[in-house]
Amino acid sequence: MTFPTLQNDSFLRACHGLATDYTPIWLMRQAGRYLPEYRATRAQAGSFMGLATNVNFATEVTLQPLARYPLDAAILFSDILTVPDAMGLGLNFVNGEGPRFERPVRDEASVRALQVPDMNQLKYVFDAVTSIRHALQGRVPLIGFSGSPWTLACYMVEGAGSDDYRLVKTMLYSRPDLMHHLLAINADAVAAYLNAQIDAGAQAVMIFDSWGGVLADAAFHTFSLAYTARVLSQLKRSHGGVDIPRLVFTKGGGQWLAQMAQLDCEVLGVDWTVNLGAARTLVGASKTLQGNLDPNVLFAQPPQIAAEAVAVLDSFGKPHSGPGRGPSLIFNLGHGISQHTPPDHVSALVEAAHRHSRALRA
Amino acid sequence: MTFPTLQNDSFLRACHGLATDYTPIWLMRQAGRYLPEYRATRAQAGSFMGLATNVNFATEVTLQPLARYPLDAAILFSDILTVPDAMGLGLNFVNGEGPRFERPVRDEASVRALQVPDMNQLKYVFDAVTSIRHALQGRVPLIGFSGSPWTLACYMVEGAGSDDYRLVKTMLYSRPDLMHHLLAINADAVAAYLNAQIDAGAQAVMIFDSWGGVLADAAFHTFSLAYTARVLSQLKRSHGGVDIPRLVFTKGGGQWLAQMAQLDCEVLGVDWTVNLGAARTLVGASKTLQGNLDPNVLFAQPPQIAAEAVAVLDSFGKPHSGPGRGPSLIFNLGHGISQHTPPDHVSALVEAAHRHSRALRA
Repeated sequence: MTFPTLQNDSFLRACHGLATDYTPIWLMRQAGRYLPEYRATRAQAGSFMGLATNVNFATEVTLQPLARYPLDAAILFSDILTVPDAMGLGLNFVNGEGPRFERPVRDEASVRALQVPDMNQLKYVFDAVTSIRHALQGRVPLIGFSGSPWTLACYMVEGAGSDDYRLVKTMLYSRPDLMHHLLAINADAVAAYLNAQIDAGAQAVMIFDSWGGVLADAAFHTFSLAYTARVLSQLKRSHGGVDIPRLVFTKGGGQWLAQMAQLDCEVLGVDWTVNLGAARTLVGASKTLQGNLDPNVLFAQPPQIAAEAVAVLDSFGKPHSGPGRGPSLIFNLGHGISQHTPPDHVSALVEAAHRHSRALRA
Repeated sequence: MTFPTLQNDSFLRACHGLATDYTPIWLMRQAGRYLPEYRATRAQAGSFMGLATNVNFATEVTLQPLARYPLDAAILFSDILTVPDAMGLGLNFVNGEGPRFERPVRDEASVRALQVPDMNQLKYVFDAVTSIRHALQGRVPLIGFSGSPWTLACYMVEGAGSDDYRLVKTMLYSRPDLMHHLLAINADAVAAYLNAQIDAGAQAVMIFDSWGGVLADAAFHTFSLAYTARVLSQLKRSHGGVDIPRLVFTKGGGQWLAQMAQLDCEVLGVDWTVNLGAARTLVGASKTLQGNLDPNVLFAQPPQIAAEAVAVLDSFGKPHSGPGRGPSLIFNLGHGISQHTPPDHVSALVEAAHRHSRALRA
């Protein structure tokens, strides 16, 4: 497979801690419901999974935010629950309620029956990656992604989102052996899934540990971090001679940054509760940081949005400009963008982040 | 007012960092729906507010968990939203949905109209404090409490619980002046409310900053911590010659412990994401810590519950035994007990916490 030459490598350089002219920016869930053009495509597709499983639709919506904003990376449009769906749990999207599994995994027999799925069942994802990569025409790099083993386990056991994670934590505390079995399968499945995305054209891969932050301190290390590490240990480090950076984001994981800095990955995402200056001191040049504007800032007016973007950049401090690896930041939100966000407010954010980060380097 | 002599002062001693024979334990929301006797009283009262505003019912349910378990403190049965209710927002409890305000505060006019309520409107709370204090017969001390200024603001603006705190954060980011005005009124109201609880017989007071953890790093300091400090600066430090310890709990506030250690209070509550050993190192003997078992542990079986209680105590380490103030722990959950908790599992927890904490001192 050959793809068009990459024109904007600021995101990939920042992943590797290399100096850039400005701080690259992309936004979690940048292709999504806040965009009227997304809602139009979604209506055409009929359902969320109709959208995600159709290569043309997935390509179209992935590129939509890039047509509006000078973002520095694209991210595959898909769902974090495709892997358990391929395991046979039956993913459904009830309108307005979020994802739901028809067959949650709540007893020993269901856990023991789980297997790493045949990656052919996820071919629609890999086809989308290749299609998007071509459609991007080398404009910016494409990020592939998966949910983390623990985050997938939350949905697999709860069957849906949860306020208290009672069912998955009941299994964790009462049958840690079953939870470990489930997580090992998830980790191996996620690794195979991300490797196939890399083969299909993903230029970076991100692991979303969206629910790592609900775990108790000791449990986070045992049941989330250890299995994220198991995924990372199996990932391809390069493809076609080009390094593939690996990004890990634990929402609510700010207290565990020192341990996460030991992960075999290039980038750590952080949410808005993290002080970027303190995080930079903690991880040094060993990891690039990614984050961390509160998505709710986008409900203020453009001048306040710009001021908050400047505050994020200033809290990280002056980016390094020398040769080799140094402390680096990728600008992002601390969580996915809200569906209620006014699209023109995103323009104000991207413009301010680019402008001020250039000024910081002057 | 004279009350019966206190027989078990382990909680108050631990608040002040003084050595105790064992680690005192109480549980957030220990009087609540998981107890069948609570549900019976609640049915008699007809509604949650019917329960909370009736002195006899409030006294009865406050004492119910003490009849079952050898807990080391009682906490006033009430709601964190009584203060905004007294401000005229109209508190309602829709069954199964949690609290809701009829008249949320969402524009400049509503914010400007807010005033510190006349404490006579909250007389039912102070009467309950006095009644409970008598009914306790000196068995254990009684903790009074309030929501923090920020946490009250969340409910006042959102009108109910929220997934994303979009409305209150929109006000915070777009009209910080209004948010500061609202928080200043809340802080003065909370201080008056807690002082009146102290006058009525509360032997310790706790500020629940249940939603501080949803704030971005800088915003937490400006909009939550500063107003918690404003409350503390106005609180009575003693009553009738007896010191009144002050407890502050920010759920999700683990990253801000160093700054919270500067608060003028005796105890910092921490949730289960916090490593107690690291927290002890951070706060030293300056603050007693309170926490931090994941309430979901109570869904495991008694042997596992005991093992997790031991792990919490061990993570804090050996308590000090000398004279004067030293590193101290009050055992608690990291959040309110779940309504689905089997009551006999709580027995296992209290027994294990008492037994192992005595052994640690041997």
